[in-house]
Amino acid sequence: MKRVAILGSTGSIGVQSLEVIAQFPDRFTVCGLTANSQTEMLQRQIERFRPDIVAVMEERYAEKLRQTRNGYGPALCAGLDGLIAVATHPEADLVISALPGSAGLIPTLRAIQAEKTIALANKEILVMAGELVMRTAAAAGAQILPIDSEHCAIHQCLAGQRIEQVERLILTCSGGPFRDVDRSAFASISPADALAHPVWEMGRKVTIDSATLMNKGFEVIEAHWLFGLPVDRIDIVIHPQSIIHSMVEMVDGSILAQLGVPDMRLPIQYALTFPERLNVSWQRLDLMQRRELTFAPPDFDKFPCLRLAYQAGQAGVTVPTVLSTADEVAVEAFLQARIGFSDIPDIIAETITAHEHRMDDAPNGTFSLPSILEADVWARAFCADLVNTSSTNPLHVS
Amino acid sequence: MKRVAILGSTGSIGVQSLEVIAQFPDRFTVCGLTANSQTEMLQRQIERFRPDIVAVMEERYAEKLRQTRNGYGPALCAGLDGLIAVATHPEADLVISALPGSAGLIPTLRAIQAEKTIALANKEILVMAGELVMRTAAAAGAQILPIDSEHCAIHQCLAGQRIEQVERLILTCSGGPFRDVDRSAFASISPADALAHPVWEMGRKVTIDSATLMNKGFEVIEAHWLFGLPVDRIDIVIHPQSIIHSMVEMVDGSILAQLGVPDMRLPIQYALTFPERLNVSWQRLDLMQRRELTFAPPDFDKFPCLRLAYQAGQAGVTVPTVLSTADEVAVEAFLQARIGFSDIPDIIAETITAHEHRMDDAPNGTFSLPSILEADVWARAFCADLVNTSSTNPLHVS
Repeated sequence: MKRVAILGSTGSIGVQSLEVIAQFPDRFTVCGLTANSQTEMLQRQIERFRPDIVAVMEERYAEKLRQTRNGYGPALCAGLDGLIAVATHPEADLVISALPGSAGLIPTLRAIQAEKTIALANKEILVMAGELVMRTAAAAGAQILPIDSEHCAIHQCLAGQRIEQVERLILTCSGGPFRDVDRSAFASISPADALAHPVWEMGRKVTIDSATLMNKGFEVIEAHWLFGLPVDRIDIVIHPQSIIHSMVEMVDGSILAQLGVPDMRLPIQYALTFPERLNVSWQRLDLMQRRELTFAPPDFDKFPCLRLAYQAGQAGVTVPTVLSTADEVAVEAFLQARIGFSDIPDIIAETITAHEHRMDDAPNGTFSLPSILEADVWARAFCADLVNTSSTNPLHVS
Repeated sequence: MKRVAILGSTGSIGVQSLEVIAQFPDRFTVCGLTANSQTEMLQRQIERFRPDIVAVMEERYAEKLRQTRNGYGPALCAGLDGLIAVATHPEADLVISALPGSAGLIPTLRAIQAEKTIALANKEILVMAGELVMRTAAAAGAQILPIDSEHCAIHQCLAGQRIEQVERLILTCSGGPFRDVDRSAFASISPADALAHPVWEMGRKVTIDSATLMNKGFEVIEAHWLFGLPVDRIDIVIHPQSIIHSMVEMVDGSILAQLGVPDMRLPIQYALTFPERLNVSWQRLDLMQRRELTFAPPDFDKFPCLRLAYQAGQAGVTVPTVLSTADEVAVEAFLQARIGFSDIPDIIAETITAHEHRMDDAPNGTFSLPSILEADVWARAFCADLVNTSSTNPLHVS
């Protein structure tokens, strides 16, 4: 019986994780949950899965839960300390890290230090602080298993292979909803347009990141930290059908790939059970029904976020932190219709440039947590200013 | 330095193996070669690779080699004992088994008993005597590595996976030269038509087997023995581009695949160096250039050899032996234009039916070598009679 704590249980990955867990009651129990504002859903999850401990970020939501509780009542806590209490709960064997964006960094680091196995759905954590996270995991002997279809695919392809015989990783990319939209139309893309992803149903932030292809850029940096290859040996290929989830090319030219239907329950199941696999009854890939798989090179000019991510990955230290934070701010501003779709990469690029000037002036950036948090705080403020300037442009006011 | 003996050095696989070996003189030496009638090519190979021992099947060819030798002279021997002497040469670490058809069975078994690593290019050996070969290999602790793009792909996909978590194997099949030819035109297919394979350049026997899809049927039985799954969990998918070389579906629905350019040097290299891989400069798969990969179900009615192979694989014992022998005789008769293309499956089916009647009358078939050799001798004679009867039909006389 594996005891699971979920950081972010009411998000897309959290909900699907509980779906997998519910199907295998003889294999998993839930010992902890955290959420933010969706208290009704959280209350239903509490009644169904009976965790020992529950945390929410804000005290007012904890209060709401206390009022609605009827019968079963777990320990209830709030704030960052509450999240950490769930992440480090002594009963937990495995922690699913599915809080959005930078909010997940500290609780996940604490779970790693507590030697939990981490099923990592939050790629921003590795973008922001990959060196620190991997170093902490190595020191604690904590395993990190990616809940991301691409990295799960690579993890499977690398099983039984020698990492020094790997030539490169090839991340597949659906191309997002704007693959076939002309670049000239990008300025008029609305949040609703960008939230309609052709293949995956996901949270709002990652859906926008998938539309700008920043999500794929993040995945390059994520793969760099998870598998230890430099970013210039991690390539992207556009594959609209999202059947091949990613590939590994070996030194002899042989390419290993993992295929499947696009269903996040598969990487969730993989991370929950590795090195075992569950015999699941979900829809399977029937290649006889899939008439064709196609491939094309990515367009770096049309999707500047992709280039920004490679550049940040190559620059290293706190540049990817700033990339991630600036993206978080810019995407939120776009979702609020305060800036346009094409402004996202511009604002991120400007923030990175300013950060690099800061680093030139005071080259004290390191992989330490204080450096990372400082870069995050700086970028958040700088970027918010850029958004405010940008959104005074009447074109962008909703 | 790995010392390699090659059984069948002048055939397609033998020649390509020497090409790989020649590229890595610091890794491999050749200690033994065998061939049949192509003495001039063999002589050039002897001068180039300087083996300790060389064998040919017929004494007259050994004599020819003795006459043409100038300078370097290895030990020369002839007949089955000669082949066995090469196969069991004390210096050899690895034996490439690339003799065509049933001729390779006994030398390969002897190499296995001598605890050599076997790079197996001859699939008929596993079709004829899979249980015996695998049991002998297990007893001797000899590793068998397939030189066949499909089985090499599966071997790579299974690395690091647990065999009990495998749901099924999926062999890809180009569909052969007659994939899009109407069945009604099959009777008029000439040997020249059938020898023009769209993807792979191979020996004559395997090229005809690829046209009837018997080759794929053999591969199902081969995979059954190599990887231990029953034939009904080994499926075939038509994939005309021959880029995905085969796949493994796990119990959780995840499919692992191996991709690459169609180049037999890759599986040869893999078998020669496993678990290492060579950093080769050969043409690589560029998926950006490959606009599409397509898949379709196989047509068992159009290609009856496929169904015959599954049936023989399920029947077991000496039925696959008879399948292989009857195919050898029928294909040779077709190449001599003594029978038509559509007669191949008919003759094999008739031979199998007669063999099954014999087994009903005297159910003494076992997996022992005498049983296998007896079934082979019987099938060869029975099938030759069928060919003679068939070829008195004036339609089939060339």
